[in-house]
Amino acid sequence: MLNTVARNSKNLKTKYGNLRNIVSLAEPKQPKVVTDIPGPRSKELLSRLRNIQQTGSVQLFADYEKSIGNYLIDVDGNILLDTYTQISSVPLGYNHPALLNTFKNEKNIKTLINRPALGVFPGENWPEKLESILQKVSPGLPNLTTMMCGSCSNENAYKNMFIAYQTKRRGENDFSKEELESSLINTPPGAPRLSILSFKNAFHGRTLGALSTTHSKAIHKLDFPSFDWPIADFPKYQYPLHQHVAENSKEDDRCLEQVEDLIEKYKKLNNSVAGVVIEPIQSEGGDNEASPEFFQRLQKICKSNEVYLLIDEVQTGGGPTGKFWCHEHFNLESSPDVVTFSKKMQLGGYFHTKELSPKLPYRVFNTWMGDPGKLLMLETIINVANDQNLLKNVRETGDHLKKNLIEIESEFSHLINSTRGRGTFLAINAKTTQLRDHILDKLKQRGIQSGGCGDNAIRLRPALIFETKHADIFLDSFRNVLIELNK
Amino acid sequence: MLNTVARNSKNLKTKYGNLRNIVSLAEPKQPKVVTDIPGPRSKELLSRLRNIQQTGSVQLFADYEKSIGNYLIDVDGNILLDTYTQISSVPLGYNHPALLNTFKNEKNIKTLINRPALGVFPGENWPEKLESILQKVSPGLPNLTTMMCGSCSNENAYKNMFIAYQTKRRGENDFSKEELESSLINTPPGAPRLSILSFKNAFHGRTLGALSTTHSKAIHKLDFPSFDWPIADFPKYQYPLHQHVAENSKEDDRCLEQVEDLIEKYKKLNNSVAGVVIEPIQSEGGDNEASPEFFQRLQKICKSNEVYLLIDEVQTGGGPTGKFWCHEHFNLESSPDVVTFSKKMQLGGYFHTKELSPKLPYRVFNTWMGDPGKLLMLETIINVANDQNLLKNVRETGDHLKKNLIEIESEFSHLINSTRGRGTFLAINAKTTQLRDHILDKLKQRGIQSGGCGDNAIRLRPALIFETKHADIFLDSFRNVLIELNK
Repeated sequence: MLNTVARNSKNLKTKYGNLRNIVSLAEPKQPKVVTDIPGPRSKELLSRLRNIQQTGSVQLFADYEKSIGNYLIDVDGNILLDTYTQISSVPLGYNHPALLNTFKNEKNIKTLINRPALGVFPGENWPEKLESILQKVSPGLPNLTTMMCGSCSNENAYKNMFIAYQTKRRGENDFSKEELESSLINTPPGAPRLSILSFKNAFHGRTLGALSTTHSKAIHKLDFPSFDWPIADFPKYQYPLHQHVAENSKEDDRCLEQVEDLIEKYKKLNNSVAGVVIEPIQSEGGDNEASPEFFQRLQKICKSNEVYLLIDEVQTGGGPTGKFWCHEHFNLESSPDVVTFSKKMQLGGYFHTKELSPKLPYRVFNTWMGDPGKLLMLETIINVANDQNLLKNVRETGDHLKKNLIEIESEFSHLINSTRGRGTFLAINAKTTQLRDHILDKLKQRGIQSGGCGDNAIRLRPALIFETKHADIFLDSFRNVLIELNK
Repeated sequence: MLNTVARNSKNLKTKYGNLRNIVSLAEPKQPKVVTDIPGPRSKELLSRLRNIQQTGSVQLFADYEKSIGNYLIDVDGNILLDTYTQISSVPLGYNHPALLNTFKNEKNIKTLINRPALGVFPGENWPEKLESILQKVSPGLPNLTTMMCGSCSNENAYKNMFIAYQTKRRGENDFSKEELESSLINTPPGAPRLSILSFKNAFHGRTLGALSTTHSKAIHKLDFPSFDWPIADFPKYQYPLHQHVAENSKEDDRCLEQVEDLIEKYKKLNNSVAGVVIEPIQSEGGDNEASPEFFQRLQKICKSNEVYLLIDEVQTGGGPTGKFWCHEHFNLESSPDVVTFSKKMQLGGYFHTKELSPKLPYRVFNTWMGDPGKLLMLETIINVANDQNLLKNVRETGDHLKKNLIEIESEFSHLINSTRGRGTFLAINAKTTQLRDHILDKLKQRGIQSGGCGDNAIRLRPALIFETKHADIFLDSFRNVLIELNK
């Protein structure tokens, strides 16, 4: 039946409504934990995988045939309500019927298996797919480069900023002979000293360029050579926000002054800042948020210094904050110069201004330049999200979650604090790292898959189909864990 | 009928033989050019795509529903014999029935659409898939890290080398407080000065770390900051090899002396070489080959200097040289420390020694850590290649191609020279860049899709299913182009 629904494209839009119910009906009613986690079967698989690779980060082995909707089911039969969704990368939950149907279509299978070098031999429908899927969700930016993951999206977006910055410096001149030759041996002027300004606790990826702008945890960085690029403080707010307006506004001032000083300092060091990269909410680094005013002022500083502004929406993009892009909450006077994405978007990439589009080919290029198969998945995701008004669902579920988290916080203020975030992209701090880890463990024992970030934050990253009924299961478990810890 | 064949896994092995014939029967008998290339429909699509992105590298738009086997069919109905295969990334040609069937299987579709964060929640069959697919083709290395593309495979492999190098330096000690703190702000000792030695004309990718080891073309490098890492000369041989044994052996000496000198020099500069990265045949840089003796001696130099050796098989891996890995031609005394792959392998990654496996989790990590959907494609590819003995086909077709290219070279030695390569991974130089580009154009007008590399090389990168009958079509066209140019 589902096949007929999804194949009949005329009816697709109206029928997605039913699909939501079908997911909902197929979902377990609640979590159920039947073994330790990892259970015996997961442990068996772990010891097998350990022969091949480092497995210290593996929490469990999942049964992706059985997992459904908001429920991750593991190989030991544990049924977990998933508020973490593969590090925030699963927008429609598991085994959504519309996604299952995406590849029950011969045309789409052919797109999947005939993966082109998109920069040289794109398929006939590539321009149309970019227009009808990605351009439709563009944050007001005309140009678009597709990639495969968050790190390579940021790395390549940095390259666009470097090119545009040097192009402006160079004016109408061609590359000099000296530039052409020196670039090949990694030295100026062809490989110039230029920098990207980033923020403390930021996370922008783990390849060596992106990693030079990542400062979330030492374990991500130790032993790797790094570019000498400037790092400014990211605001650290006091909560609740409405009780600390003056302090937090001063914090914005302090951090923005640092940005201006660093731009000045690195210019003098002959290592000018070509671009600033920032997350709208710092995710891996602890779900740190900054005010719309902070971002508005940051954009002004960038403009007045002729420095490009890249907003990294790899974790925030695709709807979890209740708007498609988190920075849409900030009322910026114009779009940022670049917006990068990945995770929920399935493929990586970035939207950018015309100015950031290289004038010559092969400057930003690689074999695949993205993946049409992933774009087909994104097409389904966006269609379902539109048809079912999932952003509205995110806002409603998020409001419900946040309101209740604040209540729980006030009840257990000696254990937890600083409820924050937008949509269902929410976090709350535990007093200590140890307590945080303990809460995550206890939640898992009650069938809640959640995640931590920063030193002591619990972060929520549910799918866009996470409803208030799911939120209530989480809230109930969370409260019970705290009651237990309180005894 | 094909569905039944591929779904019936008991018969799968014996039935692949028939699939080859089916591809062969479905293929056009020969190329056919009916418009300019790009034709009117391609031009229309180009102008549409140009609104969104830089399109200077796009040659044509392909019809991936109609393309079949070794024939790329474009949107204007031109039928091109493909000797370039999406920059060497399509091992079984277009629309191979076995690949089409891979996703006509509900279990595989579920693997495809439920993409896990493999480092945290792998699926039940992940260890088994790694063992039965990737470990089976390992070049004698016990450990394996999966990634998504060539650049991120090299970048992350460099990180493994840096970690192992520093771990050895550090001995039994934990990270110091100073290391932990300094790493977060991009400075030594936590973010140490360490380097990767690479070779002139090398290509290892385009993210900023990988790009610091790439030296193929200025346009890949201009305007991007780079690490100060050492670069040695890669041998430039005189052809035919058997007539220049002494000169070429001296060339090996010269380049290897540079390697030793640079390792010494960078140690003194407090920027020690942790690893050496090299392609078994330099691809983008001009299809430059080096002798087995060169690689054997390079490995000895690495060992005696306690520097790791990474062989980058992103373009050479997966069979096109007639062995699964090109470096298997070199009779090294032991496996290299790391071997990276991507392209024909569909997903990226690297095999490595136990010593290069990080002792702590999250040091080499990202959200997806590869893609199980791509591994399913690789499974089919390897099964088909084994069943149909495609490496033997590559050797036979390659021998036939090379023998005939050498004959054509001797006939037109004033235009072309230096036929070289292994298997069907072959190249020949034109006298000038202009002549090379002209030959590529003329070939395309005759329905041959080929590619260039370096300053003046024509490179052949056909699929593993490219047979002598296809080679003859190429050879015939190539000879006719040269006759025409000779007039």
